[in-house]
Amino acid sequence: MSLRVASGRQQHVLPAPVTVESGAVLPRVSVAYHTWGTLAPGGDNAVLVCHALTGSSDVADWWGALIGPEGALDPARDFIVCSNVLGSCYGTTGPGTPEWDAVFGATPDSPAVTVRDIVHVQRQLLDALGVRRLRLVIGGSMGGMQALEWALLYPEFVEAIAVLAAPAVHAPWAVALAEVQRQAIFADPEWPHGRAAKGLATARMMGMISYRSAQAFEARFGAARHDASAPGVTRWLHRHGDKLVDRFDARAYVTLTHVLDSHDVGRGRGGVQAALARLHQPALVVGIDTDILYLPDEMRALGRDLPAGELCWLESPHGHDAFLIEQDVVLRAVRTFRAQFDM
Amino acid sequence: MSLRVASGRQQHVLPAPVTVESGAVLPRVSVAYHTWGTLAPGGDNAVLVCHALTGSSDVADWWGALIGPEGALDPARDFIVCSNVLGSCYGTTGPGTPEWDAVFGATPDSPAVTVRDIVHVQRQLLDALGVRRLRLVIGGSMGGMQALEWALLYPEFVEAIAVLAAPAVHAPWAVALAEVQRQAIFADPEWPHGRAAKGLATARMMGMISYRSAQAFEARFGAARHDASAPGVTRWLHRHGDKLVDRFDARAYVTLTHVLDSHDVGRGRGGVQAALARLHQPALVVGIDTDILYLPDEMRALGRDLPAGELCWLESPHGHDAFLIEQDVVLRAVRTFRAQFDM
Repeated sequence: MSLRVASGRQQHVLPAPVTVESGAVLPRVSVAYHTWGTLAPGGDNAVLVCHALTGSSDVADWWGALIGPEGALDPARDFIVCSNVLGSCYGTTGPGTPEWDAVFGATPDSPAVTVRDIVHVQRQLLDALGVRRLRLVIGGSMGGMQALEWALLYPEFVEAIAVLAAPAVHAPWAVALAEVQRQAIFADPEWPHGRAAKGLATARMMGMISYRSAQAFEARFGAARHDASAPGVTRWLHRHGDKLVDRFDARAYVTLTHVLDSHDVGRGRGGVQAALARLHQPALVVGIDTDILYLPDEMRALGRDLPAGELCWLESPHGHDAFLIEQDVVLRAVRTFRAQFDM
Repeated sequence: MSLRVASGRQQHVLPAPVTVESGAVLPRVSVAYHTWGTLAPGGDNAVLVCHALTGSSDVADWWGALIGPEGALDPARDFIVCSNVLGSCYGTTGPGTPEWDAVFGATPDSPAVTVRDIVHVQRQLLDALGVRRLRLVIGGSMGGMQALEWALLYPEFVEAIAVLAAPAVHAPWAVALAEVQRQAIFADPEWPHGRAAKGLATARMMGMISYRSAQAFEARFGAARHDASAPGVTRWLHRHGDKLVDRFDARAYVTLTHVLDSHDVGRGRGGVQAALARLHQPALVVGIDTDILYLPDEMRALGRDLPAGELCWLESPHGHDAFLIEQDVVLRAVRTFRAQFDM
């Protein structure tokens, strides 16, 4: 049902150059996006979905259960938009496109853009589509970071946000993990040519360790420990590494892990608490009890520091990835949140 | 004081070939070791200290506070022995020595030896030194795994064990982390030649993420987040990576991470609980509340399943490495444990 009203991937070229936070200027930015549903004449029924690190604009591909008449996002009443982020490799300008490489070089080894840059580009897309107001900005992990920045950068434009498994600031432990993933890519002998199949696979394997909990690993692999015929944890890890290599670009991976590291709602705003205190929109905050990447304590602090924050827990053995795995629970939480504010 | 009675590093060549668990035969094994204090005529005052992954036999170098008249290990009454483990690179036969490479190849990419093999070699050393009984076997992390295996393989020889920050079995999450570290080494273009400076640095950086807690990272680096002049988390990580490259061998690192993965006290013994139920020696089990590598739940289970287990908590913001960092706390715990049993 939901897929029948999907737009398919579309492309929008921004009308003017984009100056990013660092001061660099991208002369031409093209944005890939999907929409579901129809924009109301007043332009006020839009919902923006923000994807995570290696996601695309095709929400049906990774959060399909949330879209539909019974879903949290209903194409019959919402105009749902998701765009591939600046710096990614699913159609939006990023590493490997001539306009990007001319500015940032062909093999990125330093930060290029930030979560805020991503949001500003999304805003330009929405303006071009005729969106005047967002009922909701929703995202998990890097998507949740975008939701927070949306509410801070465009408070009048955003009625509510839903932040899943994303903290107010990328903590040092998470920065360390991102750095190590980049080092695995940089160590690949193919990297100077902009490729790093082995390095990217290793980086992804490293990521998977943080995306699932020790409990999840134990439940899946602990019992079959002595069964030589059972696919073990290392085979599972390698499969995940190899799968990402088939669908993602190492340069974009480096670029977007730097984006994660840029995330700090308090930067230039007097600190995290001062920044969050400004947000008066209803904010659903979904923490995952077994998340080892963005910790329960961080989500608790976020829920507490947001004046209209509503903290709810996704109890799951799956760790960080639960926001993608437990779609039925996410769906119910978002539906309840929206019903409460009649949005 | 303690250092004055140290032996300096000595070397012992085992009198016969060593057959390891896999069936491979090492024709010649040489063991590097240190001792402190004097063996009693009856050979019954020995304490064996077991080192962790990248440790050496020089306990004074990494657990110095534990040795001394006020320490947990007193050279005035204990004959303290520590040997570099089989497969390491601090003097004992391991990768890079001709006798090892002839059997296992010059660039190890599969498991070679196990915790049990390491213990059997240590036993041969102790026999040669005239040790008839061990008052205590003590170790943290990989050292704690050896202590557990000592009690299981040589129950009559071991009076008591102290296991710090080491579980009964290397859990799938920890196996995954070890595998990813190895992949970082394998990806190094120098690896086919048995070197991997960049890969080893990345592996170590990855290890550091698991050796310290998110809280420890936050305390150290969170406050200075916006201070460009402060050494950040990535610099700290790189320094740790580079430091290990200066002192450790990539081949030994691969070999010993496989040793960690081999750790399962239940293997061939009817499972973990059945194996632990056999151990009637007093066993001090020290868990670290912030350890994300070997989790509090695992340590709790170990303390519970050991019939004479005494679980005590090292409360520390430092995570897994607390067993090396909080030496005063470890010292007191071990001293109290020994006093209680007059050992």
